[in-house]
Amino acid sequence: MNYRMISYIMGQILKVVGLFMLLPIIVGFIYGENHVVASFGIPFLITMAIAMGFTIAKPKNNAVYSMEGFVSVAASWVTMSCIGALPFVISGEIADYPSALFETVSGFTTTGATILEDVEAMSRSCLFWRALTHWLGGMGVLMFVLAIMSSNDSRTMHMMRAECAGPKVGRLVSKSRFSARILYGIYITMTVSEAILLMCGGMPLYDAIIHSCSSAGTGGFSMWGNSIGHYNSVYIEMVIAVFIILFGVNFNLYYYLIIKKFSLAYKNEEVRTYFGVIIAATAIIAVSVHKLYDGVGDTLRHSFFMVASTITSAGFSTTDTAKWPVFSQTLLLMLMFVGSCAGSTGGGMKVSRIIILIKTGIKELKYITNPRAVTTVKMDGKPVEKDVVRGVSNYLILFLSLMSISVLMVTLNGFSIEESLSSVITCMNNIGFGVGRFGPAGNLSGLNAFSKVVLCFDMLLGRLEIYPLIMLFVPRRR
Amino acid sequence: MNYRMISYIMGQILKVVGLFMLLPIIVGFIYGENHVVASFGIPFLITMAIAMGFTIAKPKNNAVYSMEGFVSVAASWVTMSCIGALPFVISGEIADYPSALFETVSGFTTTGATILEDVEAMSRSCLFWRALTHWLGGMGVLMFVLAIMSSNDSRTMHMMRAECAGPKVGRLVSKSRFSARILYGIYITMTVSEAILLMCGGMPLYDAIIHSCSSAGTGGFSMWGNSIGHYNSVYIEMVIAVFIILFGVNFNLYYYLIIKKFSLAYKNEEVRTYFGVIIAATAIIAVSVHKLYDGVGDTLRHSFFMVASTITSAGFSTTDTAKWPVFSQTLLLMLMFVGSCAGSTGGGMKVSRIIILIKTGIKELKYITNPRAVTTVKMDGKPVEKDVVRGVSNYLILFLSLMSISVLMVTLNGFSIEESLSSVITCMNNIGFGVGRFGPAGNLSGLNAFSKVVLCFDMLLGRLEIYPLIMLFVPRRR
Repeated sequence: MNYRMISYIMGQILKVVGLFMLLPIIVGFIYGENHVVASFGIPFLITMAIAMGFTIAKPKNNAVYSMEGFVSVAASWVTMSCIGALPFVISGEIADYPSALFETVSGFTTTGATILEDVEAMSRSCLFWRALTHWLGGMGVLMFVLAIMSSNDSRTMHMMRAECAGPKVGRLVSKSRFSARILYGIYITMTVSEAILLMCGGMPLYDAIIHSCSSAGTGGFSMWGNSIGHYNSVYIEMVIAVFIILFGVNFNLYYYLIIKKFSLAYKNEEVRTYFGVIIAATAIIAVSVHKLYDGVGDTLRHSFFMVASTITSAGFSTTDTAKWPVFSQTLLLMLMFVGSCAGSTGGGMKVSRIIILIKTGIKELKYITNPRAVTTVKMDGKPVEKDVVRGVSNYLILFLSLMSISVLMVTLNGFSIEESLSSVITCMNNIGFGVGRFGPAGNLSGLNAFSKVVLCFDMLLGRLEIYPLIMLFVPRRR
Repeated sequence: MNYRMISYIMGQILKVVGLFMLLPIIVGFIYGENHVVASFGIPFLITMAIAMGFTIAKPKNNAVYSMEGFVSVAASWVTMSCIGALPFVISGEIADYPSALFETVSGFTTTGATILEDVEAMSRSCLFWRALTHWLGGMGVLMFVLAIMSSNDSRTMHMMRAECAGPKVGRLVSKSRFSARILYGIYITMTVSEAILLMCGGMPLYDAIIHSCSSAGTGGFSMWGNSIGHYNSVYIEMVIAVFIILFGVNFNLYYYLIIKKFSLAYKNEEVRTYFGVIIAATAIIAVSVHKLYDGVGDTLRHSFFMVASTITSAGFSTTDTAKWPVFSQTLLLMLMFVGSCAGSTGGGMKVSRIIILIKTGIKELKYITNPRAVTTVKMDGKPVEKDVVRGVSNYLILFLSLMSISVLMVTLNGFSIEESLSSVITCMNNIGFGVGRFGPAGNLSGLNAFSKVVLCFDMLLGRLEIYPLIMLFVPRRR
């Protein structure tokens, strides 16, 4: 293992996080919040000092294999979460450290679950930092580092793989650096477009930035207690719903559109299924909840928004789903597992994994019927490699095993089975709200410190897709 | 597909079921219950008439492949459930047909979930029939047919596979017929031994037969509202706990003991793990519930009994687990998935499948760390064939998919997510009690007809391990 290179990458990542801490300081000055000098200044200095320590010696050997990628990404995410929590503690807005850590991990992993009972009491700079963690975590900090890195990048693919979501990761262009730049270019363009469209709907600049950053990462932190419901504007809800859906699409698709390979974009099975599921789920839920709202328009508005918010793992809300029929709540709980597309900023198991799992199940049925028939799992018309199919099945096994252990640990908190299960599901899939007490109208403030730490771990497991984090605990042989 | 052979096998199975209906008639005469002439006589005649119709033409071609095995087993189980429900309806003791069907499917599949609000009001003959369905369903009716069949049995292995539980089925001796006889010989010996031991503890003969039949199939139907708790006898509880654990062991193990191959029996990884899990779960739950009981003895007594009853899928109870801490309830819910050993009368996913799944997960982690290292999943010191490993993963995928769909359908009944989930889990794993409202102290009488049908389907899916039942719905090509 190339520890020098790992420390160097970690240092680069921390530098980026440190520099982003300067933005809330500017916001604080604009709104006359003088506490920012201490609450963001101190963490900024700590981060930069650690980053300098890590990068002081440039590694002689640039070799980066998958293990180095996994370990540096996992270690960076843990470190930046620990440091990112400091502003909340120093400013006194989230006084106890486990809660502040939970809020920060929830931010970086774009979960959006909050332990705040009154989010509106928070200062503008801290709210800005919360939204910024979503934006940074959405596309990935390491991806940002790759985009700005000037060094030789022939092997950085291994690092990209560690932070990027989905069963397999492909480069857009031959060099990872350019891939990362293209992705961030699209990401920034979309975020700015959303902010502008929100302002066209009458949203103030500050609010627009908060909500577009939060949408971009499909995170779900809002600045209001009742989330997007605060604005009570169909226009704003629809802009946000459409954008979170777009941020949940595989970004490779946008690249294909840019280079005018429309047929490649159109044929994408994952994206088509993703849109299909959104439409079907909206229709089914609309039928199930229509008695609760006035008329078809209102019913569709809330059904569509909540389906979009759940499947993309954004976790914004316009209505309290705890009042919905159990059937619809269960359907939402299932959509949480489906999640958005691979290579997007969304969470969940990813649509492509679900497609592969279902096709694998059907293949097994065919095999049982006729063992001699050779069948392969196909996607986009091409056979999926056996390694990928096996990897997806095993991902499911590991995901469920870790989920079961987490649920068992959270039940020690004394909540019901349903509540414990829903808090773990929402965290591991990076959604932000669960069902019942932990639904959109609730928050996770009732959790004890132990449960918070377990759920922090679950959120990181979900965002980094298990392996990087587990690698930190696997004994080294080399 | 050899439809003639399928109909012939179905006929044989129904004959056995029909003949077993004569036993409750005898019980009815002993206890002076004259309704048995109609309530069991009519179903007996119907069953025999159908059986005659099915077997009237002996098939010329004896070929039986896996499809024939699957289809005949699934069709027989559905038919015998539909007919087995008639005595309850005709006697008027369970007046509506969906409820009677539920009770019968729950019996044959050895689930033991009941919709009866007052089981003690039932006549002795009907209670006897309920227990008998457990006994027949435990080892399997087809297995019984194989044991008594005199015909050439070179291909009956395919049928055995369809009814027998576990990731793979091996014959004990070269001919299936002898395998089936050995298994039934062991089964009958153990059932009789348990009945005698129960009588030694002061249990009346009738009660002893009911509870030993019920234990043998790891079913869980009792003749008392508070199950085994009724006797309030440590001796009786321990006899039942030990026997259900023994009925949850792979029966091949007993064969090895009979032929004195002790080392083969001792080395069995599945059985060792099974005992390990029982001991560990009892200890953990004892710590969690110790405040609810007086002293260590009472705590261990209830913890051990409920762990045994859950993991073996028997579903007897001595205490109301709904009062236990959520942690312990969740642990029981997880044990339901683990289940007992392959090739036993118990339910659940089976210990060997769980072992293979965990080992597959660990193998994947090793693969991620070092893709060049070749690792295989081993069991009992030998590598598990790739087909079996893949089959187990795919079984998990199909099991979870069908479970999700079922939960969604049951939520339409209006229960909470926890209740809907627990009713499906308890049915698919053939346990008999869930958590909360559906815990040991409750019953499933609150379900509507639609949910009952869904859960009947789930119980059959669980008992026959998915494939046979699904094959009834797969379109034929040949």
